[in-house]
Amino acid sequence: MSISTLTEGNQNKNDLQSFAALSKVFEEKFNKRKFPEQPAQLYDATQYLLTAGGKRIRPVMCLMANEMFDKIKEDAYEVAAAIELFHNFTLIHDDIMDHAPLRRGRPTVHIKFGESTALLAGDVMLIVAYENLNKINVEYLQPILNIFNATSKKVCEGQQLDMEFEKQDVVNFEEYVNMISLKTSVLLAASLQMGAVLGGAGAGNQKHLYEFGKNLGIAFQVQDDYLDAFGNPEKFGKKPGGDIMANKKTFLWLKAMESGTVQQKKKLNELLFCDDSSKVEEVLEIYKSCNIDEWARDLKKKYYSVAMDHLEEVAVRSVRKEQLKQLADFLMERDV
Amino acid sequence: MSISTLTEGNQNKNDLQSFAALSKVFEEKFNKRKFPEQPAQLYDATQYLLTAGGKRIRPVMCLMANEMFDKIKEDAYEVAAAIELFHNFTLIHDDIMDHAPLRRGRPTVHIKFGESTALLAGDVMLIVAYENLNKINVEYLQPILNIFNATSKKVCEGQQLDMEFEKQDVVNFEEYVNMISLKTSVLLAASLQMGAVLGGAGAGNQKHLYEFGKNLGIAFQVQDDYLDAFGNPEKFGKKPGGDIMANKKTFLWLKAMESGTVQQKKKLNELLFCDDSSKVEEVLEIYKSCNIDEWARDLKKKYYSVAMDHLEEVAVRSVRKEQLKQLADFLMERDV
Repeated sequence: MSISTLTEGNQNKNDLQSFAALSKVFEEKFNKRKFPEQPAQLYDATQYLLTAGGKRIRPVMCLMANEMFDKIKEDAYEVAAAIELFHNFTLIHDDIMDHAPLRRGRPTVHIKFGESTALLAGDVMLIVAYENLNKINVEYLQPILNIFNATSKKVCEGQQLDMEFEKQDVVNFEEYVNMISLKTSVLLAASLQMGAVLGGAGAGNQKHLYEFGKNLGIAFQVQDDYLDAFGNPEKFGKKPGGDIMANKKTFLWLKAMESGTVQQKKKLNELLFCDDSSKVEEVLEIYKSCNIDEWARDLKKKYYSVAMDHLEEVAVRSVRKEQLKQLADFLMERDV
Repeated sequence: MSISTLTEGNQNKNDLQSFAALSKVFEEKFNKRKFPEQPAQLYDATQYLLTAGGKRIRPVMCLMANEMFDKIKEDAYEVAAAIELFHNFTLIHDDIMDHAPLRRGRPTVHIKFGESTALLAGDVMLIVAYENLNKINVEYLQPILNIFNATSKKVCEGQQLDMEFEKQDVVNFEEYVNMISLKTSVLLAASLQMGAVLGGAGAGNQKHLYEFGKNLGIAFQVQDDYLDAFGNPEKFGKKPGGDIMANKKTFLWLKAMESGTVQQKKKLNELLFCDDSSKVEEVLEIYKSCNIDEWARDLKKKYYSVAMDHLEEVAVRSVRKEQLKQLADFLMERDV
């Protein structure tokens, strides 16, 4: 290794921290943040979810993007905390809307504390996210709030579209990609962008990191849908077919409804009203005969490749992109 | 009228606008603010409530406090809009929690659009409130956000306490005043304070306006409870006894449970399980024999008087307090 690769300003390669390392640092700081003691029920509900784990991917991405440009700023930890709080706020409210019984292996907040307290716990978590944002250096406050607000609105819009699509017979493929992008990808994208803003990145670098996150998020969702249908149960950790049993409109289902024969589409629609144990098998058979598995792997690769192209375009030395690249690879290596 | 009362800097007395005038100006500006078009369901839900009227007391109080110190700033309209959006966000979520069927004479948002869309409409309204705040001059952004965030948290805490108190057999009077203050008064108080901040007011003037709003809010709530029990139906516009039929813990009920005889308290507790039409009459009889009506009128006067003392302390010429005084009198003149 030459000296030039070891030095980047005052930092050397080792200064760029891995996901595991940053995750640990974030976790330590994040756990120190306390909600008030009273009303106990309300803040027990917020703590209940926040201490239940979670991979902290979004806040760590914010920190990684920040470190691409310089040493991590204190402000980046505040924004990272706000991102994680926002994410948890959406989980609480989404779980209410979806009547979900479990989250992170435990009863959801509304099951444990009742719907009203869960609703308020989500609200207060969003407000506390803004409290964290308001701690940053005032020179960054307006641009960071602009990104945060625009993103938060999009996430709500994505959830609304998701609920509407579940009730629709036909969903256009592009509309579906847009919904997934709003519901899950834009927060990843914005986490990276906000980290970059605090690192002093210019508009071009911000945009490429945003697009990297957005496309990576879509690739991840395609993979998630694929694994739920075709994943190796031993590696995936759960029985495949959950989405099929729940009649969830996934990338796979939409594609099959687009590319299947009249007969296959009719069968898929009939199977929506079937709860037999053979349901998963029958749907998978149709998927396979339409080559949906191959198509999904290709689709994932397509989005992943676009993501990587954008990361490539970020104007910092490639050694400074290594950790983000490794994280992206790690996220994409789940048995596909 | 002497020349000196006509001039205050470059303004004369007529420059200070009445509630009606400011309400009209606010309404015109507020109505121009558009939410996005899509997803239509989500933003129809937000518009549905925002266009259903409402007295706009909080945003106008913000404008009035701003005008006490100088001509109204553009920033004050942004903050006033954020306050009104926040208030409407709380109405949507509170109505879900309270299973309320009607609001402003129309079906509530969750009845009209379903609970999930209502929940999201509330969320997105809170986010748009922050979008409005982020439009103000950056020099005021951090102090305004500090007040807004702290207040928003308190309002959530007040709603949580309100729900908990409804389930409790015994509620301490001071705890109840604290809950009412959090749930309804602090937003009035903060609206005034934020208007003052944007008008360049110092800490002392901010504090006195805050306390004016907080005490006025509590006086207003006492009056509301009083009118629901003892109000003249013709002037009050609705049949008295709604709170009694709904077993709502009000100032009156708490006081009766504190000062009544053992026999009276027993009877009040028994009446909680009664749905007869005689219920209102029987409760009112106990209230009257405990002099709760007189006590409530005195309590209201006490808070109103504290409020007025704080307004008196605001260090601007008294002519500049006239409009706020008139608004307070108007709010307090509802048949008590």
